[in-house]
Amino acid sequence: MIITGDEEYFEDIGKIAFEGKDSDNPLAFKYYDAEKVIAGKKLKDHFKFAVAYWHSFGGKGTDPFGTATQNFPWDNSKDPTNAAKAKADAAFEFITKMGFEYYCFHDFDLIQEAETLAESERRLQEISAYLKEKQEASGVKVLWGTANCFSHPRYMNGAATNPDFKVLAHAAAQVKVALDTTIALDGENYVFWGGREGYMSLLNTNMKRELDHMGKFLGLARDYARMQGFTGTFFIEPKPMEPSKHQYDFDAATVIGFLREYGLEKDFKLNIEVNHATLAQHTFQHELQVAANANMFGSIDANRGDYQNGWDTDQFPNNLYEVTEAMLVFLEAGGLQGGGINFDAKIRRNSTDLEDLFIAHIGGADIFARALIAADQILSSSSYLKLRKQRYASFDTLQGQDFEHGKLSMRELYEIALSQDKIQPTSGKQEFFENIINQYL
Amino acid sequence: MIITGDEEYFEDIGKIAFEGKDSDNPLAFKYYDAEKVIAGKKLKDHFKFAVAYWHSFGGKGTDPFGTATQNFPWDNSKDPTNAAKAKADAAFEFITKMGFEYYCFHDFDLIQEAETLAESERRLQEISAYLKEKQEASGVKVLWGTANCFSHPRYMNGAATNPDFKVLAHAAAQVKVALDTTIALDGENYVFWGGREGYMSLLNTNMKRELDHMGKFLGLARDYARMQGFTGTFFIEPKPMEPSKHQYDFDAATVIGFLREYGLEKDFKLNIEVNHATLAQHTFQHELQVAANANMFGSIDANRGDYQNGWDTDQFPNNLYEVTEAMLVFLEAGGLQGGGINFDAKIRRNSTDLEDLFIAHIGGADIFARALIAADQILSSSSYLKLRKQRYASFDTLQGQDFEHGKLSMRELYEIALSQDKIQPTSGKQEFFENIINQYL
Amino acid sequence: MIITGDEEYFEDIGKIAFEGKDSDNPLAFKYYDAEKVIAGKKLKDHFKFAVAYWHSFGGKGTDPFGTATQNFPWDNSKDPTNAAKAKADAAFEFITKMGFEYYCFHDFDLIQEAETLAESERRLQEISAYLKEKQEASGVKVLWGTANCFSHPRYMNGAATNPDFKVLAHAAAQVKVALDTTIALDGENYVFWGGREGYMSLLNTNMKRELDHMGKFLGLARDYARMQGFTGTFFIEPKPMEPSKHQYDFDAATVIGFLREYGLEKDFKLNIEVNHATLAQHTFQHELQVAANANMFGSIDANRGDYQNGWDTDQFPNNLYEVTEAMLVFLEAGGLQGGGINFDAKIRRNSTDLEDLFIAHIGGADIFARALIAADQILSSSSYLKLRKQRYASFDTLQGQDFEHGKLSMRELYEIALSQDKIQPTSGKQEFFENIINQYL
Amino acid sequence: MIITGDEEYFEDIGKIAFEGKDSDNPLAFKYYDAEKVIAGKKLKDHFKFAVAYWHSFGGKGTDPFGTATQNFPWDNSKDPTNAAKAKADAAFEFITKMGFEYYCFHDFDLIQEAETLAESERRLQEISAYLKEKQEASGVKVLWGTANCFSHPRYMNGAATNPDFKVLAHAAAQVKVALDTTIALDGENYVFWGGREGYMSLLNTNMKRELDHMGKFLGLARDYARMQGFTGTFFIEPKPMEPSKHQYDFDAATVIGFLREYGLEKDFKLNIEVNHATLAQHTFQHELQVAANANMFGSIDANRGDYQNGWDTDQFPNNLYEVTEAMLVFLEAGGLQGGGINFDAKIRRNSTDLEDLFIAHIGGADIFARALIAADQILSSSSYLKLRKQRYASFDTLQGQDFEHGKLSMRELYEIALSQDKIQPTSGKQEFFENIINQYL
Repeated sequence: MIITGDEEYFEDIGKIAFEGKDSDNPLAFKYYDAEKVIAGKKLKDHFKFAVAYWHSFGGKGTDPFGTATQNFPWDNSKDPTNAAKAKADAAFEFITKMGFEYYCFHDFDLIQEAETLAESERRLQEISAYLKEKQEASGVKVLWGTANCFSHPRYMNGAATNPDFKVLAHAAAQVKVALDTTIALDGENYVFWGGREGYMSLLNTNMKRELDHMGKFLGLARDYARMQGFTGTFFIEPKPMEPSKHQYDFDAATVIGFLREYGLEKDFKLNIEVNHATLAQHTFQHELQVAANANMFGSIDANRGDYQNGWDTDQFPNNLYEVTEAMLVFLEAGGLQGGGINFDAKIRRNSTDLEDLFIAHIGGADIFARALIAADQILSSSSYLKLRKQRYASFDTLQGQDFEHGKLSMRELYEIALSQDKIQPTSGKQEFFENIINQYL
Repeated sequence: MIITGDEEYFEDIGKIAFEGKDSDNPLAFKYYDAEKVIAGKKLKDHFKFAVAYWHSFGGKGTDPFGTATQNFPWDNSKDPTNAAKAKADAAFEFITKMGFEYYCFHDFDLIQEAETLAESERRLQEISAYLKEKQEASGVKVLWGTANCFSHPRYMNGAATNPDFKVLAHAAAQVKVALDTTIALDGENYVFWGGREGYMSLLNTNMKRELDHMGKFLGLARDYARMQGFTGTFFIEPKPMEPSKHQYDFDAATVIGFLREYGLEKDFKLNIEVNHATLAQHTFQHELQVAANANMFGSIDANRGDYQNGWDTDQFPNNLYEVTEAMLVFLEAGGLQGGGINFDAKIRRNSTDLEDLFIAHIGGADIFARALIAADQILSSSSYLKLRKQRYASFDTLQGQDFEHGKLSMRELYEIALSQDKIQPTSGKQEFFENIINQYL
Repeated sequence: MIITGDEEYFEDIGKIAFEGKDSDNPLAFKYYDAEKVIAGKKLKDHFKFAVAYWHSFGGKGTDPFGTATQNFPWDNSKDPTNAAKAKADAAFEFITKMGFEYYCFHDFDLIQEAETLAESERRLQEISAYLKEKQEASGVKVLWGTANCFSHPRYMNGAATNPDFKVLAHAAAQVKVALDTTIALDGENYVFWGGREGYMSLLNTNMKRELDHMGKFLGLARDYARMQGFTGTFFIEPKPMEPSKHQYDFDAATVIGFLREYGLEKDFKLNIEVNHATLAQHTFQHELQVAANANMFGSIDANRGDYQNGWDTDQFPNNLYEVTEAMLVFLEAGGLQGGGINFDAKIRRNSTDLEDLFIAHIGGADIFARALIAADQILSSSSYLKLRKQRYASFDTLQGQDFEHGKLSMRELYEIALSQDKIQPTSGKQEFFENIINQYL
Repeated sequence: MIITGDEEYFEDIGKIAFEGKDSDNPLAFKYYDAEKVIAGKKLKDHFKFAVAYWHSFGGKGTDPFGTATQNFPWDNSKDPTNAAKAKADAAFEFITKMGFEYYCFHDFDLIQEAETLAESERRLQEISAYLKEKQEASGVKVLWGTANCFSHPRYMNGAATNPDFKVLAHAAAQVKVALDTTIALDGENYVFWGGREGYMSLLNTNMKRELDHMGKFLGLARDYARMQGFTGTFFIEPKPMEPSKHQYDFDAATVIGFLREYGLEKDFKLNIEVNHATLAQHTFQHELQVAANANMFGSIDANRGDYQNGWDTDQFPNNLYEVTEAMLVFLEAGGLQGGGINFDAKIRRNSTDLEDLFIAHIGGADIFARALIAADQILSSSSYLKLRKQRYASFDTLQGQDFEHGKLSMRELYEIALSQDKIQPTSGKQEFFENIINQYL
């Protein structure tokens, strides 16, 4: 089950076991029992936990004020192919030791970008073959792939929204190759995150023209992938800002409007990230609900932000409230449409023990398991659903129903209002709802 | 020209004159010369400045931690009709002394709401007749009317989105009467601001059902008004939060998506408020540009927020940057579609001299005038537009143009990328653009 | 034990009992067992839970966009004394039914302010006598009193920091009377919250002069109270903003610096409010730790803010993380110095059932109890303290100790650095610490 | 006057001249006329403009989502000394072409840090000699030096506040060498910015112990420097967060309290940065006023943040309001105590033309010049000062004065209050003050 390469990188750590909530073993799951069935499905099938290749195997701990702190033992070779294979070995060792079944990647997480596009494509083909073998040996799969169209300096003014057509063409080529790579690795979905699709200053920007370019670009990508036989879902990942001052994919509502405007709503759904939701002044569960309302509840990037810090901290999820309230939406929406729970989170740059990567992922998996179990109990055992439904009872009969069915005009509503008694206040019972949540945590 | 009632409320103050920027007279315009022609139109016609009835004649200076500080001399009568007439007298005296031509109102700004709907309607009819006379005498017009469906306790759980059908029906009746009133007063537009349309807690909320109700409700209101012969535009005023924890009309992009989803996009445009934009983490000009992109650049609520405070401070506009950058969008969009500049701003609660109301509006009018003049010069005299256009020059010919015309596939873009030379960086010149702005202020 | 007046206001509700965590009774404590001993002390003695007179018996549910929603049955009399007695009856009924032992008040929570200072003082004396009787009958005590020097319009420019000496004198008189009232009611502490002590605009403000006035004012208040035999502690309650744009008592560190600068540090400690901490971009536990460092860990105003809203929402505490991390500081600091846990929280304005007030307080008490129990276990049973101490082990011996003892100069440190080996990274283990917290919740 | 090295790096650009506000030349000053006398002093002497070595000659345009975009022509050599000399040549060419007289540096801005401390020290000595020559040739001086104790991974858990004594010793050694370097270069001041002095998680932190270490550390640094004959001022630069979750030097008030607590207030003053002020939810002018109140108005790091983004964007100053209101405090405080205006600002990462560095600094210098001229006019020609003083007139005579002189007790204030008439409201005239500002911009 555990797949190592020539070298074992996490040699003191074996397969992470479920030991239950009384265990003091920091390297054991306390709540995440992969095979446990909740709401008719195994936990592992609810979640499809995925490891983020970039943070976990490539994130060196740099920040705007500091250089790399992480010394990854798999990061020693100067040769791109050897380095990429070592990284893949470490990744598969880690993923299989965690007992997870998925990973997610950007093109140049897998292997270092080359000087030319042609050579980059060749490298990706080479490492894909290696990864494919490891996938087959381990059963590990690709939840989604994507192209990094934001780190290279060529993208400093945008990728699909760059004012320079050459850059747009390059981005298109990069996305084509990333799609090819994702298809080659049987990736189940494909993601777009528009880190540079936005502006640094509105003063020098033709926003409408840039948005039109982005709409067209995504349509071309979809058409290409479908022609290659890709049947998975495309996801857009909203984020309001950072690195740009203002990103076009600001939040779920903005992206849904954009997808519909450009005729993309049949093939695209949303990949909601916790920290991106909170940077946009929404709660995570709000963004999930907006996606669910639009039938675009696609996938989740699991992490958390810091409520005192105004940037993307990408910390591991550990907030039971945030995740339980998300799981209420999750269960009511019937789960994710194609996607899974990708740990788009990074250990702190001063968490420099190799075991920290395990501890962080264990904490994250446990919080999701615990939250899903609590949410299921709230929905199935408490008065929560009944209380909420009762609030809307007046729309389930008579005039309320007529209104919903479009049978009442403004004038008829006016006549009703004239004739009805003084309205009595109805408590929203917010504190009661909140106490119910706390009762089940 | 100046219209007073039986009593002159601002007796020490006459008509506010334009005296130019060297004047030290606090009660004179320094930049706003109503008849001055800029970009082919008089300033007064660009702006259609409107006074907000609620803040200026009804805002008593309460805040969450304090009681009323303003002692308005027109606010002495216990009799609703007399009180409303005195308020109208004060309003028309103020508006005509300012030399403005418009006002905006909520239904119960005009006259105090009664115990019953029927009596409230009668009161509104009575005061409308009085206002109509004053309009005719003065030439002052209604920029827009609206219904206050947020202050009364019945709306504590929402109006159109209230879980109780009775409240929805009452809100519909109130909107019907407010539409009737607006039509009776020849109002040019009608606004919806959904202060309670949102949630205090997602836990007790069926968001999808509430949004469906809101969509239907707005459609019914439109249908009713059109049947009554109303030809003006409906505006939605986005705001992200406050008083609700989260309002459905979060920002321009959210509202545009909503209007299109519910088939309202032909009749509705946006009324963008500065402070609402900034509460949603956008700049004012961003929100205006989003509205312009969707051909929904309807009207403006002029004020400003406080960048250190996280609530709606509704201060008078005085930031030349904020307004000039807005005026760039304004001029490029060809001005407002039906609406005007409504001073939805309140003097500070410790600004208790009657003249403070004049000083504040003068400052606001001057900043708009100064900003429009600067924006016009930037667009007509500086290199601003040329520089911005040049950034996109590669899309005006050859392959870039082919892309815009939909003639290139992903694979063709890939071939282009393979063959093109190394991409050279193109500076965004942000600091240069910013210096141009400063040069013209 | 339960003390009612002539009328029983909460007649369907009896004494709130502890029923344990499996109880589905919304009107029972699930964690707060008042007599349970944790860390050597009864829960009730750790916490000294107090009810806030203003929110719970006077908070009518107004907000900046809406009028009162609460119809309190004790709020019927137009006569100030009768109204105040009815309110007191309701308060004591509520407090005794909750099983709490304390309340907190502002002067004019107890009885409506009169037109003149002399009459206000007389009213306070009258209602104090009535309250004193009820205290004696019930055993309920005053945790702290304070003067409301922010609601009345006279304070719109400040109280102790008002530019007008007359207002300062009035504020001083009001504080004197509030001190007299607190002393008469055997109040254990006295609080200052400077809601208007700050500025709306720095432009019209002489900050230094205002701060000097505030420093002097507090010293005079202390001197007066001590002369009257008051031996309790004075607390300052920091808040960064709202209602002012910027309040002088911004946060714990600012207040501590101020107290020391004006020689007040011996008599004053801090009253830390959760929502005020977060408005200042600190965590609650940060502010508590800052207070503890300065030996000013005085009292707590328990509530919570909304992380998506930038104003003081004063919601009931319900976040187990926020409170548990606070309780870690609380236990390590040896508890509060004189103060207690005052529920400075208000039910939502749409929580209009009388039982909502109970439900909210039960939720609050339970979260504190649950958090204290968890914190105690973390400190006593987990590796938490040991792990944290180990991080600083190098300062417990040899050169590290010499440094702490002031025995090393800069040059000696330089010599040590020159001679020491390459520094090895030491993981901060943040994710491990966080998992420990989650294990004990 | 212009000092180039062997190579001229900005060869198309000569000395930047003052051409006045009607000039369309982007490479000319429009307001900054260095020799112009305002308020009795030349502009250049008011400001002492300094260039930040790190941003301007070392800032490569990386951000958390992207790699370097800047290709500096002076950054070609692999040899540290040659690279450092080329950078110095570029720096002095730039500074002298700008006509500025100062620069600021971190130790390892001047030359790349070596593997060992001893070699790093040697390198610094070598490059210092080179810089000294250039200083003498050009007249350019060091405004302040500092040590970068935040970028190297050894500082990931703090420098002076690191839990590992070895790191503290290394930091001390580094500061000693940086002090030696600053002294060797006749630096006028020395700065501490505690980027890592704070915590990532309070859970694993002993805040009190860390603060004690920091206090001691700064005292040792001062003592060492004084022994070496350094007579300049030490500055602390407050910042609330980033890179740490929470930095100890949160804001001006916090730092002032800290300096006094640890007996450092005689030798240390503050270096206030605009963007740090706004990240702490203060205005820039607020922080300056707090520093002025404490007689610690030391130096300024000039830049600006982005009000929609929650991180340190370090943009060039261009906001006339922010800077004019700062200059009001500046002039009233009598200017900076030892420091100057350091452009701690970076061109956007997509501003990749070499001329952009000039354009940005020109914009910055112009905004300061324009703001100082406006502030001087406001103070000398407008009613601003008189109006503000009048607000406090009641404290300039009689009882108000007695209060200020400590001659009134609480009881006497109470007696005064009892006898005084009803207090009349006094308008704060905020809108009037704001209009005055706009009149002079």
